Amino acid sequence: MGGSLGLALRRAGVTPIRGVDPDRQALEDAARLGAVDATTTSIAEGVAGAASVVIAAPVPRIPDLAREVFVHAPADCLVTDIGSAKRAVVDALSAEDRVRFVGGHPICGGEQCGVGFARADLFNGATWFLTPTAETRPDLYERAHSLVAATGAVPTAISAGVHDRLMALVSHVPHVLASALIDQAANTAPEGREALRSAGPSFDDLTRVAGSNPPLWADILLANRAALVETLDEYRERLDVIAAAVVAGDRAAVESFFAHAADARDRLRAVQRAQDAVDPWEVTAVIPDQPGTVSDIATALGHAHINIRDLVLHPGPPGGVGELVLRIGGAEDARAAAAMIRERGYTVWAAPA
Amino acid sequence: MGGSLGLALRRAGVTPIRGVDPDRQALEDAARLGAVDATTTSIAEGVAGAASVVIAAPVPRIPDLAREVFVHAPADCLVTDIGSAKRAVVDALSAEDRVRFVGGHPICGGEQCGVGFARADLFNGATWFLTPTAETRPDLYERAHSLVAATGAVPTAISAGVHDRLMALVSHVPHVLASALIDQAANTAPEGREALRSAGPSFDDLTRVAGSNPPLWADILLANRAALVETLDEYRERLDVIAAAVVAGDRAAVESFFAHAADARDRLRAVQRAQDAVDPWEVTAVIPDQPGTVSDIATALGHAHINIRDLVLHPGPPGGVGELVLRIGGAEDARAAAAMIRERGYTVWAAPA
Repeated sequence: MGGSLGLALRRAGVTPIRGVDPDRQALEDAARLGAVDATTTSIAEGVAGAASVVIAAPVPRIPDLAREVFVHAPADCLVTDIGSAKRAVVDALSAEDRVRFVGGHPICGGEQCGVGFARADLFNGATWFLTPTAETRPDLYERAHSLVAATGAVPTAISAGVHDRLMALVSHVPHVLASALIDQAANTAPEGREALRSAGPSFDDLTRVAGSNPPLWADILLANRAALVETLDEYRERLDVIAAAVVAGDRAAVESFFAHAADARDRLRAVQRAQDAVDPWEVTAVIPDQPGTVSDIATALGHAHINIRDLVLHPGPPGGVGELVLRIGGAEDARAAAAMIRERGYTVWAAPA
Repeated sequence: MGGSLGLALRRAGVTPIRGVDPDRQALEDAARLGAVDATTTSIAEGVAGAASVVIAAPVPRIPDLAREVFVHAPADCLVTDIGSAKRAVVDALSAEDRVRFVGGHPICGGEQCGVGFARADLFNGATWFLTPTAETRPDLYERAHSLVAATGAVPTAISAGVHDRLMALVSHVPHVLASALIDQAANTAPEGREALRSAGPSFDDLTRVAGSNPPLWADILLANRAALVETLDEYRERLDVIAAAVVAGDRAAVESFFAHAADARDRLRAVQRAQDAVDPWEVTAVIPDQPGTVSDIATALGHAHINIRDLVLHPGPPGGVGELVLRIGGAEDARAAAAMIRERGYTVWAAPA
């Protein structure tokens, strides 16, 4: 994933890019790929004078690595990561550390970007979650947004807790469900191997992601343990309800279960279609130049599924007011964004760009 | 579905085909399509002199319809059905009725054949389960096999109980899982609609069949209630186990859960690949001409996933012995089939065809 990130950023003209890794072979490979301009095995050396640092490491190691980076990087350096769970990372850092830290998680291809070869277009059009906090400095959030946008991805701010529950729901629980089902199928063979022959489209759909990379997925599940347990518990309660309806032979309840699902599916698709609106609008807000303001606005819009295509901050004098300019697709989303910003007490206006 | 069946059988030269339905409009449509040679709203008239009768009706109505057919059809008429659950049908019939009855269930396209327009090629290559019993007359099973093969489908004998558990596993439980997940996703929106944006490939796979045709699926689930509850209970136990492992932070158990799934997936795929063996073999068995013998052999082979491409019965004198000739793909399956038949005490030989 580091390789793809380097290639994507260089394609966008971001330079120089330093690769830092304890593994010299990995560094040589990255250099040969053209993913980095310089390499080092020393974090202190790698982050010296950096504008931004992206940590790509297993989730449990990220907080310690971040703290090491904070020691050696400039005071105004953005530090971000690409781990698949966010609360464990953000919660482990102090409020002071969080001024410079914006959690990140790109969602692309097979959900875990970087499976396969490094390529510059890996992030094109991908959602890249950012989880700024109340402590995040506005200009550093702006820098995180730009860095992510430079890779071709769509930066989307959400809270770390929402991120984790969301990933549990759309990725981690699905992997659990698929794996449980295929294991049951393979072990259901009263007199032979009959589970296979009639495996139809629904079984194929439900089990496509089953059993992918067990060590990686064990890490992913455990890194997101709290949100996963919560989401899986709610899911199991839903199964309890439908199982009880079937046991009771309650046809109305069973039909209503499927009708709710049909309704849910239609609602989700309608929202996805609505996101295709394209005419660009600009929303401009006058905001105080203080930690958390941009995070708060970006996160509120992220939660409401309002896509910030471009985010530019014109800071004011220290302690004064600055201007935040958001490029947003479609009049409806732009007006909704303006309303949300106005609710927060800021002066704001929206207009076609 | 009746329309597709008529078209497929006429394409195979099976004639005349009578359409029987209380709905005159449906009969006119079938005639216009060329799916039937003659039509009537009277069961008595429709089945008079018939060699085979196929009942296409909701599962709960099939036993009564079958009994009405038995009254009016010739004593040596095969009666079969295409309902999605089989134990409820077979168990509702008397042993005497079961002499002439062979349950059936074609699996094609979207699992419920016949959604969409009638077409002659609907059954091409589809598995068509047959659930003969110990009472089934050998020549009537042979007729069922030929009738199904004439549609282009692959007749596969399994027991009614195995059929129902299998359908629960590969179709009914997947529909429940998908519907529960999409409903949870649509209703998880702590501060907006954020479940959608990052819906990746695994979520799309898991929810593709969610919410399809609620009244139809309510009927399908309830028709297969006993097997569904059993299968869903086992599935829920599997979720309990993995949820407990995640709660406990037991990395070895979580990794082993995914490793078992990976192993299960590989085993299932290996068996599916093995079924591609093509060189034709012939297995010939000397069997007594009495009820249940052919059912027993065909079901044993069906459970072992040995595909009977062609089945021909040369009956002996009443009470004497006859010859059963099975066309089977590949030396390995042919030898396995011969071994299973030999275990049953019959003389048997296998040779390349």
